[in-house]
Amino acid sequence: MIKFSINKNAFQNALRITKQAIGSKVTIPALTKLKIEVEENGITLIGSNGQISIKNFLPVDNKDASMLISGTGSVLLEAAFFENVVSQLPEVTLEFTEKEQKQVLLTSGKSEITLKGLDSEIYPHLQEISEGSSLKMKVKVLKEIFTETVFAVSTQENRPIFTGVHLETLSTGELKAVATDSHRMSQRLLPLEDSELKFDVILPSKSINSFKNVFTNDEEEIEIFISGSQMLFRNETISYYSRLIEGSYPDTNRLIPNEADYTLDLVFDAAQLRHTMDRARLLTVMTTNGTVKLTVSGDSVVTTANSPEVGSVHEELTALSKEGNDLAISFNPEYLIDALKVIKAPEVRIRFISNVRPFTLQPRNEESGFVQLITPVRTN
Amino acid sequence: MIKFSINKNAFQNALRITKQAIGSKVTIPALTKLKIEVEENGITLIGSNGQISIKNFLPVDNKDASMLISGTGSVLLEAAFFENVVSQLPEVTLEFTEKEQKQVLLTSGKSEITLKGLDSEIYPHLQEISEGSSLKMKVKVLKEIFTETVFAVSTQENRPIFTGVHLETLSTGELKAVATDSHRMSQRLLPLEDSELKFDVILPSKSINSFKNVFTNDEEEIEIFISGSQMLFRNETISYYSRLIEGSYPDTNRLIPNEADYTLDLVFDAAQLRHTMDRARLLTVMTTNGTVKLTVSGDSVVTTANSPEVGSVHEELTALSKEGNDLAISFNPEYLIDALKVIKAPEVRIRFISNVRPFTLQPRNEESGFVQLITPVRTN
Repeated sequence: MIKFSINKNAFQNALRITKQAIGSKVTIPALTKLKIEVEENGITLIGSNGQISIKNFLPVDNKDASMLISGTGSVLLEAAFFENVVSQLPEVTLEFTEKEQKQVLLTSGKSEITLKGLDSEIYPHLQEISEGSSLKMKVKVLKEIFTETVFAVSTQENRPIFTGVHLETLSTGELKAVATDSHRMSQRLLPLEDSELKFDVILPSKSINSFKNVFTNDEEEIEIFISGSQMLFRNETISYYSRLIEGSYPDTNRLIPNEADYTLDLVFDAAQLRHTMDRARLLTVMTTNGTVKLTVSGDSVVTTANSPEVGSVHEELTALSKEGNDLAISFNPEYLIDALKVIKAPEVRIRFISNVRPFTLQPRNEESGFVQLITPVRTN
Repeated sequence: MIKFSINKNAFQNALRITKQAIGSKVTIPALTKLKIEVEENGITLIGSNGQISIKNFLPVDNKDASMLISGTGSVLLEAAFFENVVSQLPEVTLEFTEKEQKQVLLTSGKSEITLKGLDSEIYPHLQEISEGSSLKMKVKVLKEIFTETVFAVSTQENRPIFTGVHLETLSTGELKAVATDSHRMSQRLLPLEDSELKFDVILPSKSINSFKNVFTNDEEEIEIFISGSQMLFRNETISYYSRLIEGSYPDTNRLIPNEADYTLDLVFDAAQLRHTMDRARLLTVMTTNGTVKLTVSGDSVVTTANSPEVGSVHEELTALSKEGNDLAISFNPEYLIDALKVIKAPEVRIRFISNVRPFTLQPRNEESGFVQLITPVRTN
């Protein structure tokens, strides 16, 4: 029967991470539970919502945890409730004691809380990855390429492959991350030092969003494994499993224009452009087609947006450089705002082909392999 | 035709305050608008949702506003949209120019925004208070008595008088503020230095909640006026009108027990009691009757709560002082938590009559005239 004492904060942190994988809206009741496995060498907290699974190991020699294990075993507890209870305990140390019939007694100071647990036998077996070749990456780098692409995924569940980010190792030794919802696309190429692992997978956007909350040490290096329909991200104590989206991602390279096709090349201050689009958006959200018009004529660059109900905006933009032909093009300012949000460079280069062809955005003066594409809206 | 220039931040602050009175869910379309009246001596912003109304005057000599008025008049603008537009303007100064047909041109830097306005003739006439005798109070003091009582109002719209705080000037020269939802009651008595104004009114809780956002300078003294069904709070520039709830409030004095009836007198550390109740609440929210049981027996004070589904909590409390008989009483811990939230004293005195009679809470060692009442729940 389980019996251990542990530092409350260390236990709470481990719970918080594991809880990322535990959903309240799951059809399998056991998946709302947290599985606690106590062995002599440490405590493992396991959570899963069927899409992502987390195994979080707290070793007995972890100094922050001040752990003392005097009985082993495993039990299931209601995850959200258990986390609340632990967070409200009065003292820095908590005692966890399994009683008869999977009842758990938590003691902390003068507070004694008895929780009804369940037999861990009813917990579904999680598919694990037979570890083979892996890719090592810094958390920070992975988060960056996720941030730069995941916003562009589709939210339409009827085309599942577009709800994830396509991750592919290229023969050039690069990792490509790309996402599109068919209105815009964002693609990042990243040179890999060590590319033993080859893959071509689609990672769900939901997994990407919770990844950020699980791996919080940006400087840490994690290992990536892939097996069948699962991807595993792992550091010394946490194993984060995500299911992959089945299907093959379309070839997005053909969407990126040839250099020779561009007819207009503009450079803007990214912050100024962003604020101009924020103002245009105030009006475009009031209209049905929701577009802002960019008119380039000689040295003048002007944005205009009209809403028959509330009014109009007219603004002159300063292009830091301009090469090419005049153009008038309409598009949804939300897409440009989203694109600018993930460009860290102070200046952004935008290149156009025509008013009916997608235009591209890139950070200026950065050989970063980062390109975004926005499709214009045809207006009369 | 209106024409002025003004510092953006000063104008934005005035808008933010006035907007507190402008609802989006109002049945009179004109009430979603902001009324701007420009005269030679300054700009008045007016908003109303039919329940509360705010008149906010920006004098032309206000130094922060750097105001220049070169044309007068009045116009209605869509309030929420206008506030968004102003907040997004690029420069510190904005130019406001009325064009033909109530169109308004806002200019700031290279940004020109045209807004469709409406004739202010369609704005309903606001009932004003013919100023007579008034009461002067510090914003801070008024906020305190509001905070100490408003949480206890009823949210049941079928008994409107209980959805407000009863404010009454007593013959003793005190102001009484009291609120109850029939499960708990909170009453504050406040000595008034200058009590020229006599009243007995019920102020809606919604008005109390927005009051805090309108008068943000706690050290400021404001004037209070009452006329018919309205109450007016006023400083040099802001006039805040609230409708009052019609009806007469029941006599709550008879609910407060006589000193002689108390059979048990306990003093607790307020923070310890609060945390114990927070833990009990984790379990009681899972049950239908939702009660915690307090058992006082000799020197022992124990709280227990049980949920058949999830478990139980058992906790010893340290009473700082205890006088009187043993008792076992059940109540909803939410009420005690709410009560403790508004008691600033570090120690709280709780006195009981029996397990079926309401018990009282007071800050210990504070002749503050602040008393709260909580009704127990009968359990089997």
